[in-house]
Amino acid sequence: MAEEDMFRQFKEHSVAEFFKKNRQMLGFSGKVRSLTMIVHEFVTNSLDACEEAGIVPEISVQAEELGEDHYRLTVSDNGPGIPKSHLGKALGQMLAGTKFHRYLQQRGQQGIGASACVMFSYLTTGQPAKAVSCHKGRKVTANISIDFKTNKPNVEALGDEATEERGLMVTAEYKDVRYERSNYGVYEYLRRTALANPHCSITLIEPNKERAVFPRSVEANPKRPFEIKPHPLGITTHDLLEFAKHNKENRKITAFLQNSFSRVSAAKVEELRALTPDVNLDKDPADLDWNEAEKLVKAFQQVKWIAPSMDSLVPIGKEQVEASFRSIFNPEVLVVTERSPKVYRGGIPFMVEAGIAYGGGLVGADKKGEVMRFSNRVPLLFDSGGCAITETVKTLDWGRYDVKNFEDEPIAVLVNLVSVHVPYTSAGKQAISPEDDVMEEIRLAVMEASRGVQRYLSGKRKAHDIATKKKVIGRYVSQLAGDLATLSGEKKDRIEKKLAKIIEDRYSGPEGGDDEEPAGDETGNGKPEAGSDSDGGEGE
Amino acid sequence: MAEEDMFRQFKEHSVAEFFKKNRQMLGFSGKVRSLTMIVHEFVTNSLDACEEAGIVPEISVQAEELGEDHYRLTVSDNGPGIPKSHLGKALGQMLAGTKFHRYLQQRGQQGIGASACVMFSYLTTGQPAKAVSCHKGRKVTANISIDFKTNKPNVEALGDEATEERGLMVTAEYKDVRYERSNYGVYEYLRRTALANPHCSITLIEPNKERAVFPRSVEANPKRPFEIKPHPLGITTHDLLEFAKHNKENRKITAFLQNSFSRVSAAKVEELRALTPDVNLDKDPADLDWNEAEKLVKAFQQVKWIAPSMDSLVPIGKEQVEASFRSIFNPEVLVVTERSPKVYRGGIPFMVEAGIAYGGGLVGADKKGEVMRFSNRVPLLFDSGGCAITETVKTLDWGRYDVKNFEDEPIAVLVNLVSVHVPYTSAGKQAISPEDDVMEEIRLAVMEASRGVQRYLSGKRKAHDIATKKKVIGRYVSQLAGDLATLSGEKKDRIEKKLAKIIEDRYSGPEGGDDEEPAGDETGNGKPEAGSDSDGGEGE
Repeated sequence: MAEEDMFRQFKEHSVAEFFKKNRQMLGFSGKVRSLTMIVHEFVTNSLDACEEAGIVPEISVQAEELGEDHYRLTVSDNGPGIPKSHLGKALGQMLAGTKFHRYLQQRGQQGIGASACVMFSYLTTGQPAKAVSCHKGRKVTANISIDFKTNKPNVEALGDEATEERGLMVTAEYKDVRYERSNYGVYEYLRRTALANPHCSITLIEPNKERAVFPRSVEANPKRPFEIKPHPLGITTHDLLEFAKHNKENRKITAFLQNSFSRVSAAKVEELRALTPDVNLDKDPADLDWNEAEKLVKAFQQVKWIAPSMDSLVPIGKEQVEASFRSIFNPEVLVVTERSPKVYRGGIPFMVEAGIAYGGGLVGADKKGEVMRFSNRVPLLFDSGGCAITETVKTLDWGRYDVKNFEDEPIAVLVNLVSVHVPYTSAGKQAISPEDDVMEEIRLAVMEASRGVQRYLSGKRKAHDIATKKKVIGRYVSQLAGDLATLSGEKKDRIEKKLAKIIEDRYSGPEGGDDEEPAGDETGNGKPEAGSDSDGGEGE
Repeated sequence: MAEEDMFRQFKEHSVAEFFKKNRQMLGFSGKVRSLTMIVHEFVTNSLDACEEAGIVPEISVQAEELGEDHYRLTVSDNGPGIPKSHLGKALGQMLAGTKFHRYLQQRGQQGIGASACVMFSYLTTGQPAKAVSCHKGRKVTANISIDFKTNKPNVEALGDEATEERGLMVTAEYKDVRYERSNYGVYEYLRRTALANPHCSITLIEPNKERAVFPRSVEANPKRPFEIKPHPLGITTHDLLEFAKHNKENRKITAFLQNSFSRVSAAKVEELRALTPDVNLDKDPADLDWNEAEKLVKAFQQVKWIAPSMDSLVPIGKEQVEASFRSIFNPEVLVVTERSPKVYRGGIPFMVEAGIAYGGGLVGADKKGEVMRFSNRVPLLFDSGGCAITETVKTLDWGRYDVKNFEDEPIAVLVNLVSVHVPYTSAGKQAISPEDDVMEEIRLAVMEASRGVQRYLSGKRKAHDIATKKKVIGRYVSQLAGDLATLSGEKKDRIEKKLAKIIEDRYSGPEGGDDEEPAGDETGNGKPEAGSDSDGGEGE
């Protein structure tokens, strides 16, 4: 093409067109995966909506097979519903929603997911999605699709009537998808969702009409994460200027800093003032320039801050992770750790919890070196190769923890990243970007848990060594007792009993009193098999 | 938050805001990687522009260190430049450009990259980027940044004068980046770019002022890929209806099909007519409904089509891949294959070329099981874990090809995916999504090349076996010759020579005449070390 023509084709495109052409970036690649992605998007939205409205979530998913690779999927919840005025935008416009700019731990965070599913439905079947929203006494029914050119919703209103019900139900048809009970299918996704969300009740009706119920095991919602102000650590110069530009309430930088960011007290402001002598902190925040803002950000790094509030981050919790692990794997040993909150770029607080299960139900040919990834309680089933969690777990020096080769051991590692903004590698939200600060915390969490496993494994090995020694020495007891009896004139069985007692005392160390003792496989567990000073009398 | 408040925060966001908050999706995570990504975006744009304008590319990259993790980067080319009217949009608006909807093999394809760099510069330094564009006799200079709220460019015009020069130069400052000569750095990126683009001359001026020149080794641009019409195979119902909606020239579906898609002849239209008796192909394309379009798409799958035109896809080429491999690895064996074009969803043609190098310069501690990924001649340095190429190569059953363990062998696999639209996993374009059709072709290409390597390796092993046998038998020659001499009365050294000749003839099979013979490592290569019927005379 001649250069004159090149710019004739210069055009602007909508984000909907972009994702229509790059649907794989939303996770829509592969038939089984695509269906799971759709369930994932609607279920995470339902959970977010219920929890935010203080409702204990009850979610129902139904997949009906209409033809080859052709399904109707219905997801309904008991959440607050969506008001009529927002229904179109919530389901038929990308990058629109309530979640984008809030410093609040949520599952969704982009305002893309549900609209992406509506797009996928339309792309593959030419049909709009049907939404029934019961919100504040009104039941609104509408067909919704996206105008790709403009990224605006097309809404065909079907009904608006009084109701006493509550909740949202979205039904749509999809082609190029497939229902399968595999590790990447809807069933497994919901099972893992239930594990990490014990307050949630999920019902799945499979295409063969089988009904799977994942009942709630906890009757109340978890503590609600607070919406917080950004933490000064990790704030960039650009962020600071943006906040200053949008500041309306505060007429001085001193007040602006205290009111816009968490953990900034009057005392801290004075520390900052001392560190930035040529920045006038008493002027209007709007007058802050790049140079001054940069100096303030540098000063942020030098001050000692209190960590972000725990209230902003709600992990699955140690007890729940343990209960989940026991229910899936019934492992021989189980260690769960929870790190304290940290901050990464933009002042975004996050924390990592990790659990490691070893042995027990994990022993077997097909269950080896499993990594179970979660972010904000959402199971991540896909794109494991590019995920910070997988990378961290696989590159850990497991040998240091007495785990010879991660791939070949009966071990499962669970990692949940909790954050008000999870740095996903793509809009499909299935893998966490390898940000240095995040990787480091994952590493520390997994290492912490690994040490617990190591203590157990090395104890087990020690017990094995002791048992071996005892057995070897035991072989000589009878012979020695006979010899000593001849020398001393004492009765052989009396001597033998005494010798056995000595060995017993010597080789039953602290391991004997442990609660968490090995479950007696071929190595023995350090306890004698015959009683020692109970009924004796076994002679030669 | 009470449910009444939830929808107060409902907002629409621009794509620029989305990527500002999710810069990791553009590949901006990690200091070294971020700088390489910036070079990547500008260099691919320069190459695309030069080639499209028929100019042999000459590109210069300069990185200057301004402070800790703070650099100024300048990329300039001898391309056609950008007209004043488009300069702002080309560099300061996302999803704007000439590349989005064209069925043309290009490196860039989204209209995001350069604007993303301008965004990153502004986010980290508060400075606009400076562009100097020499286009058709005018030299336009401007400062450019993005308004995040609206995704519109801010352009501050600095100059507009007559010039005889040509090309585009973009200079911008970046913080939070780092220059390093690592495997993920700018130098390595440009080296690999040069390897896959031998017609391109690249000059790099490193922060220490060292100048690295990657000169062109081919004096002309590669054959220009043709912009093509989509192939009917892989067209979805939605695509077909979209094309029909935008059709203006054709008043009948028959003509529309022939003129809108490649490889559709009048004869093929009649085949389609026979397969879709209840679709009236003589009506206006605008009247096609979903149901009818779906039937046509089904018929597309049943007709036998000619593959997409080779002209639309331009690989690196067998000779060039071989030359590149030799120059990097000087391998012992080298096999390059090129698959014929195929089609994936949306009628998008693609092809895969693969090369495998084994041994030679690859033997050594640090060079083992390397995968070199390219797409449309662009090196992919990051996100290897989530990439279809890595996944395919690593999960191949290498044992079948006499490669015991891919990770531990001195082997390098190069794969280049050529397509008019590469399905990247994210906007950062560093990994290819595992689409079934694409994975399958990668697998077949690598397998084809692997068979070549296997032939060599099994030949080498056979030669080793033969040499061993010969050596064993050789040990008895002298003894046997002595015994036979005693029995027959003939001279021992004469008999010994004859025996040696027999063994030589027996164990020097076709391997002896091979061109591609093993390079004589510890296994020997099937040739005798001592001459056989030349000067003899070695007695016992």
